[in-house]
Amino acid sequence: MSRTSLKNWPCSFARVADILGDKWTLLILRDAFYGVSTWSGFHKSLRVARNILSDRLDKLLEAGVLERMPVRPGVERYEYHLTDAGRELFPLVVSMTQWGDRWLLSVNKEPVRLIDREQGAPVQPVAVQARDGRYLRARDVTFEPGPGASKELHRFLEQLQDSGEA
Amino acid sequence: MSRTSLKNWPCSFARVADILGDKWTLLILRDAFYGVSTWSGFHKSLRVARNILSDRLDKLLEAGVLERMPVRPGVERYEYHLTDAGRELFPLVVSMTQWGDRWLLSVNKEPVRLIDREQGAPVQPVAVQARDGRYLRARDVTFEPGPGASKELHRFLEQLQDSGEA
Repeated sequence: MSRTSLKNWPCSFARVADILGDKWTLLILRDAFYGVSTWSGFHKSLRVARNILSDRLDKLLEAGVLERMPVRPGVERYEYHLTDAGRELFPLVVSMTQWGDRWLLSVNKEPVRLIDREQGAPVQPVAVQARDGRYLRARDVTFEPGPGASKELHRFLEQLQDSGEA
Repeated sequence: MSRTSLKNWPCSFARVADILGDKWTLLILRDAFYGVSTWSGFHKSLRVARNILSDRLDKLLEAGVLERMPVRPGVERYEYHLTDAGRELFPLVVSMTQWGDRWLLSVNKEPVRLIDREQGAPVQPVAVQARDGRYLRARDVTFEPGPGASKELHRFLEQLQDSGEA
């Protein structure tokens, strides 16, 4: 079976992996959700080399995950805030934390709990759900070509079906 | 406000970022969900240098995300499969794809659709939900110290509350 590189296909996952597939980028994102917003705040929290921090912040600005604005009008100090797109990475950040709590720590040893303000109760585990709310595992779904699928992607997905791998 | 490094705290997110915060690692994970299971299968799909692929596969084995087994008993060719822990990264992989579809592509241009086998309909967007099913954004939750929180983490979370940042 000849398999063309997925990486060069119009694959959303690969493009997101290109943006977020970096330890420091992910830690900046986590801190942004904690409410950290200044260069010095990120620097104090992460204790990373200055050039790495600046590079990763620039990449997150470029990717439209963070936006930068003056602390006050006319002042040359800036704050970094999550954009609408950035805020929608919340499920990803929560699912990473929950996975680590479950698989890397002992039972009932989670360092941080996410509490729903309205009910004062922990949030649910992030899951893939069907329209009717059923919880889905990978084997419960098929990968079908969508409206943006290239010819190569159509072929790749057909091959997966044929080989019974999907 | 003096802020101790979060990275060295017992923070699940930081440990997961250490494992998954790499572009090639994430692409291997995606391929494993597509059903790719051999070294040559990953190599053909990703077209990455051999040493990088071997390094990332080893790290995923070490982290307990993949497991390796002989293709047949007594044969020295191996297959890589997701472990139980690895399969539970499904919501993370789906949420990355959905975020990319929504924010990096034009409307209704997703290359791949995840279809629930039972109903033949696309899966729901992965979301953070309250126990009663309400959808939660970051501002709807608080970050509270859990049973595994260190003293430093208690202090850090209190400071966030005090500063009104959380």
